[in-house]
Amino acid sequence: MHVAIVTVGDELLAGRTTNTNATWLCGRLDERGVDVERVTTVPDDVGTIARVVNEYHAEYDAVIVTGGLGPTHDDVTMQGVAAAFGRSLEFNEDAMAWLEAEGGYIRDDLTEGTAEIPRGARPLHNDEGVAPGCVIGSVYVLPGVPAEMKVMFNRVSDAFNGAPRYREIVVVDEPESALLDRLETVQERFDVTVGSYPGGSVRIVVQSREKGAVEEATQWLRERVDVVDDLEG
Amino acid sequence: MHVAIVTVGDELLAGRTTNTNATWLCGRLDERGVDVERVTTVPDDVGTIARVVNEYHAEYDAVIVTGGLGPTHDDVTMQGVAAAFGRSLEFNEDAMAWLEAEGGYIRDDLTEGTAEIPRGARPLHNDEGVAPGCVIGSVYVLPGVPAEMKVMFNRVSDAFNGAPRYREIVVVDEPESALLDRLETVQERFDVTVGSYPGGSVRIVVQSREKGAVEEATQWLRERVDVVDDLEG
Repeated sequence: MHVAIVTVGDELLAGRTTNTNATWLCGRLDERGVDVERVTTVPDDVGTIARVVNEYHAEYDAVIVTGGLGPTHDDVTMQGVAAAFGRSLEFNEDAMAWLEAEGGYIRDDLTEGTAEIPRGARPLHNDEGVAPGCVIGSVYVLPGVPAEMKVMFNRVSDAFNGAPRYREIVVVDEPESALLDRLETVQERFDVTVGSYPGGSVRIVVQSREKGAVEEATQWLRERVDVVDDLEG
Repeated sequence: MHVAIVTVGDELLAGRTTNTNATWLCGRLDERGVDVERVTTVPDDVGTIARVVNEYHAEYDAVIVTGGLGPTHDDVTMQGVAAAFGRSLEFNEDAMAWLEAEGGYIRDDLTEGTAEIPRGARPLHNDEGVAPGCVIGSVYVLPGVPAEMKVMFNRVSDAFNGAPRYREIVVVDEPESALLDRLETVQERFDVTVGSYPGGSVRIVVQSREKGAVEEATQWLRERVDVVDDLEG
């Protein structure tokens, strides 16, 4: 399963906020064996959101969009997603009923548009805030406030499943350039994916869909490099 | 000036690393009055890097690519950028001479390919590590290790200049939904851009290329909202 994540918000592009939502989503999807192929941050702009969501919806098995839900004029994600599907926004009775029954809100107190989602979309209820998310096609629209995003993702996480992936990390006390031959050999010999990340010690990440291959490759490596420490990845 | 940032690395897409390089670059560019319109993370894959760099090079005034430089097989950014321009990689004598003279390296000790950059590109020297970056057209290729990326960006930062932007932040103790009319009015009346960010107190960010407009708009707001605190943005 191949997924793209679209994070919406001028505050991310101005460097006022670090995109920890993307890190969290990537980590959760990785745990579920799902490959995140793209993370893209776009401004609070209807046309750009529509264009990117449309493109990724055609290219990936699913798209997660986060940020830009809510009542103010700079919250335009629902409009962008609706435009990506050529739909209008529509008041959703189910979302409103949930806000009254479970959210403790009074219909007349809520801002116009609070319960609007693209026509034909399924609402996702927000256990931590007001603005509902939605699912339309294989596009999942979640809030940007981290606590709201996380619980809403957990409501839909069953839809994200890939083949389990196994990974081990070997931390090595040798310069990366000295390791090249061994990294190449281990990759070819055991049919595993190997990444190496410098910075102080070098972290070698060995991964595969085959648990045995990762174990054998890691053992082979450990016998041939100057190991600092082992961590479970 | 409109800029896109491309961050390369499987470790970002697996959620093992938070993309603080993007935050830092966005913040620096924002200070210089430059608009970052897109931040995209792509895997360590030559074809994807080439496709995205090619597209953004056509669309934006400049592109900053960071990550995936170095000697190992998963460092494929230079190949991807070369492919985006239809060029080959080529040994760069200037980069190698700098590594010997300033970096303290011995030519024969360096891995084959260390000083290779796309044909016709200008090398960027690395004050904190081995792998050089480069500039080709309006594409700036920087390392992914944060300390290396930062000093290399500082070497080229003069190329990034936009009209100065003024910004003030007003922190408000009212629910976001209650502020809608005032936010809309201040935006129209003073021709400023207004963002509002919930989470505990609401942060209202007022910005414009006109300093006076921001000052007047902020004062107008302060007289009409329940201010918690003021911060300089």
